[in-house]
Formats: sequence, structure tokens, C-alpha cells
Amino acid sequence: MYIPTLDDMIAARERIAPHIHRTPVLTSRMLNELTGAELFFKCENLQKAGAFKARGASNAVFGLSDAQAAKGVATHSSGNHGSCLSYAAGRRGIPCTVVMPRTAPQAKKDAVRGYGARVVECEPSTSSREAVFAEVVAETGAEFVHPYNDPRVIAGQATCSAEMIEQVDNLDAVIAPIGGGGMVSGTCLTLSNLAPSVKIYAAEPLNADDAARSFRAGHIIADDAPETVADGLKVPLKELTWHFVQNHVADILTATEEEIVDAMKLTWKRLKIVMEPSSAVPLATIIKNPNVFAGKRVGVIITGGNVDLDKLPWNS
Amino acid sequence: MYIPTLDDMIAARERIAPHIHRTPVLTSRMLNELTGAELFFKCENLQKAGAFKARGASNAVFGLSDAQAAKGVATHSSGNHGSCLSYAAGRRGIPCTVVMPRTAPQAKKDAVRGYGARVVECEPSTSSREAVFAEVVAETGAEFVHPYNDPRVIAGQATCSAEMIEQVDNLDAVIAPIGGGGMVSGTCLTLSNLAPSVKIYAAEPLNADDAARSFRAGHIIADDAPETVADGLKVPLKELTWHFVQNHVADILTATEEEIVDAMKLTWKRLKIVMEPSSAVPLATIIKNPNVFAGKRVGVIITGGNVDLDKLPWNS
Repeated sequence: MYIPTLDDMIAARERIAPHIHRTPVLTSRMLNELTGAELFFKCENLQKAGAFKARGASNAVFGLSDAQAAKGVATHSSGNHGSCLSYAAGRRGIPCTVVMPRTAPQAKKDAVRGYGARVVECEPSTSSREAVFAEVVAETGAEFVHPYNDPRVIAGQATCSAEMIEQVDNLDAVIAPIGGGGMVSGTCLTLSNLAPSVKIYAAEPLNADDAARSFRAGHIIADDAPETVADGLKVPLKELTWHFVQNHVADILTATEEEIVDAMKLTWKRLKIVMEPSSAVPLATIIKNPNVFAGKRVGVIITGGNVDLDKLPWNS
Repeated sequence: MYIPTLDDMIAARERIAPHIHRTPVLTSRMLNELTGAELFFKCENLQKAGAFKARGASNAVFGLSDAQAAKGVATHSSGNHGSCLSYAAGRRGIPCTVVMPRTAPQAKKDAVRGYGARVVECEPSTSSREAVFAEVVAETGAEFVHPYNDPRVIAGQATCSAEMIEQVDNLDAVIAPIGGGGMVSGTCLTLSNLAPSVKIYAAEPLNADDAARSFRAGHIIADDAPETVADGLKVPLKELTWHFVQNHVADILTATEEEIVDAMKLTWKRLKIVMEPSSAVPLATIIKNPNVFAGKRVGVIITGGNVDLDKLPWNS
């Protein structure tokens, strides 16, 4: 297992700079008053393709040799990684295949195709996904880019907190949502090297709290198909992300479904940004844990903005 | 009638700097492809109190003498100017009174009160509003800050395009929504002095197209209570804003209600920002008039983000 290093992050930053946005940091006096903390929201919902995953996907795609790139890239994902890999492959002009369950929402398939990738459907089971994906790779010779358990992807996600510490001085803590742990691992990579005094927190839906339970147990616990409105956070940790979580995360905090939806609506209202339910989990946990965050300068990573505007969770 | 000058804008910029955000400029490849133009969205929905009107209100409030400031400020507004004046007065720690029709939405009254101002209700008629407002001023000695027909307010709004031309090089055109014309006038003030080659367009709902008709007629036409989803744009031009519109605007373009709502939803989806219907009128007209904008670098002013998340126009 290769653990990505600070040099990998620095190389990633240069490599992906032409393909990603330096996203803005927003603040809200009202949210500061509510939480007693000074919050700095790093808006990766405003990132290319609407999610931080454009960073890791771009780093993987633009790091390929020309020979490998000609064969393309492939992944399995029904979420942002699929559309972000499609985006990055489109920027390089190489083929991309995304294996998705045939039951995935049409909007998600359209997003992947919209950036130019081919969608190959599988049945909604792990065995079908793995079989179909193996066929795709055998047929095309495409390079597999895992959504998070990949050093190139983690080094790419790590560029986000490198920007943030240039944009905001003297942070006491940074908090990001945790699903598979790609963003949290990248954050650990950068901050443990460049700003080791900053405490790193992860935020997780109580309904999908496998990372929090893993953290307390000291080994990876994977749940089977948890149900949460924060649909980007259902996947389990893997060995590479577990390495970073285990070594550098101060704590993993959880929030209920209602707390997540409330924090989501509050952020839309106060920061005037469109963001996914997953992105609201950190604020939900900050509101819930004033003892941890009050009086602190806290960076909050808003991970993505891809949400169905016709099905907002407070209208359902 | 005093016409504000470039020096007034420069003084405003320095005066309000501690009280407003330098708002980011966002871009979207997909919206560029759709329109054939290069669009640069200046996000005043991310401004303090959620609207560009924090600029003009702050300039008026912080320009008052201490003696006048002690008596406070007052206005009549059921929209963003009321909450922005309340915000600015709160920052200076002076009294603020906003006269609002008793029929105004509770959320708007709450927003004004939330920043500290007193709300005084009137009947929903011009005569009642004027009578109640006169009483407030007689009683308090407060300084009247008009929502747009005020040189201090226009000089404040003018700071927005001063930022934009620092953030984006070589603009060919700038477009902003027009209601009373405060933002458009400020844009004219700055660009006619600092970037006279930039063409200035205004965008208006077809259902409230009094400014477009004024522009073609060569004199102010005021409609009585037009109905449009873009509720910030119902008010008529006044002499000061008419001066700028008449002398510096290239054209006033209109869009239907459906085109406005479609452009609003498209912007939420692609730029991941929460914005008011009024803010969508420029994009609606750009989509409709490729002959005017294709191939051009266009600054688009997103004027505000205060919208009821429980009553989105595409869900009604």
C-alpha cells in the first residue's frame, strides 16, 4: 500500500491547477452567532462538476502516461466521482467508462454522460457491479480510478485544505464529512504536514456511522447499505483512508437525519449556496457540539452541490 | 438634483470596505456553451444581508454626521433595501425604522427586525405609506434613505462593478436587472468613467417592463403594481436613475415569467447558488438574445439571494 505524501499533494496541485477552481471561502455572522465559533466555509460545491472530487479525478487522469491515457479510465460510482472522472477525462480528451446500477437516478446517469463518459449499467448488487466492471476493464484496458482508496485521488483531494490554509489564517480546526474518507484523508495529509496544530474532525450521519464505530473500535467496520439523506456518505472506509483517519483524526461526530436537513436548509438560507445533504453534516455536528467548537476558528468543507432541485428534503 | 460622481464611488468604496464582502465571480462552462458567450457572474447574493443593497445602505449610513446618525435612519421598503439598511444601521449602532405594509410577508418583517431595525406597519397603499412615513420622520428626525433615488445609494452600488472590472479582464458587456435602477445607475457611474468601452445592458421582466418602455419613449413611464415573480423589480425609475439609464445604457431587454423561472433553476443547478428570481432575469435575456451576447465576455450581476426556500417558483 503506497501512502501518498506531501510531495504528491504539491505535484497534484500543479498538475490540476488548469482544470479546477480555487473555490471561495464564505462566512456568515449569523452562523457564527448561532454556533459561538468562527466558521469558514470552503465551497467545493462551487468546484468544477459541482464537487471536490474533480480534484482527485483530475490528478489521476492528468498523471497517466500517454500510453495509458489512450486506453482511458474507468470507475464504478453512482455519485460525484463518476461525473468528476468523466469531467477530467473529457478535459484530457480520453475515454471514460462509468459502471452504474441500472436503478441509479436518471439525473446521475445524465450528469456522467453530460461530461462525455460512457455509462455501462449493472444490476444493483456488488457481484454484478464487480463482474461488469471486470469486463469493461478487460475489454478496454482502462485504468481503474477508485473513488477514494487511491493515492492519486487522495493527493488530489489534499489540495483543498492547502488552499484553505492560504485563504484563512490561524485555523484551530477543520471539519469535513466522512463517507469513504477521501476528503478527510487528503485533509489529514496536508494539515499533518503543513499545519499540524489544526485539529481534524470528521462528521458522519448517525444512520451511516460506520466510520465513527471503526474509529472507536480501532479497525474498519463496514455496514451493508445504510440509509441516509446524505447519500454521498454511505460507503465504508478502506485501508488507505483508514490509515489517515486512524493516525490524524481527532474525533468523528454524528448527526441525525433531521439535524442534517435542518443544517442544510439553514446553510442555503444564510450562505445562499446550493449544497448536498452530505455537505450539511459538519454544520449539524458543530451546532450539536458547542463544547468542541465554541470560541474556535473552524474550517468547514462543503463537499458538493449536486442535488435534485425538484426533490428537496424539506419539501418531502 | 445632485448626480453622484466617480469620486463619490471611490469615497464609498473606502467607507464601506469594512462592512461588505468583496463577492466572488463564478463561471460555468455549461452556461457558456449554452449561450455562446463567456459569462462572469458577480455574486451579490453572497453579499452581507444577501443583496447588493448592503453597499448603498452602508454608504448612506456611514456617511452621516455623528449628530444626524444619532437620530437614526428610516426608509420604506418591503424588500432587500429594508433589511440592508437595518444591517448597516446595526453596524453603526444607530436607530433604524422601516415602514412596511402590514400585508408584507412575515419573513421579510423578520429579516428587517433580525438586523435590529424597528418595523412600523402601514396600510398597503401609497397614501398610507407616505402618511406613516412622514410621522416616523417627524417623530424621530431620522434621515430618509431612499432605496435607489439617492446619490449616496447609487455611489454605494457603483462599488460592485469597480470590483468586477478588477476581477475580470476585458469585459465586452455588463448586464444587471432593472427595477428602480439603483444597481444599473451605479454600474453606469463606474463603467462610463473607468471602462467606457464596456456596453451596459439592463434586464427586466416583460410583466414589469416600465423601464424598457421608458427607455424607448425617452421619458419615465411608471406602472401601477405590475405582477411578476421577480418581485424586486416592480418599482419604477426615478429622476436620478433615469439620468444614468438614459445616458449610458445600450439597451433594456425583457424576459417572460417562464423564461425567468427556467433561468433561475438553471443557475441554481449549474452555479450552485441560491438567488432570487430578479437575479435570473439577465441570464434569461442572454439566452434569448444570442445575437447580442454570443462571442462576448459578459459580466452578469446576481443581485440577491433572499428567497423563500419553502415556496420555490418551480414547485408552485
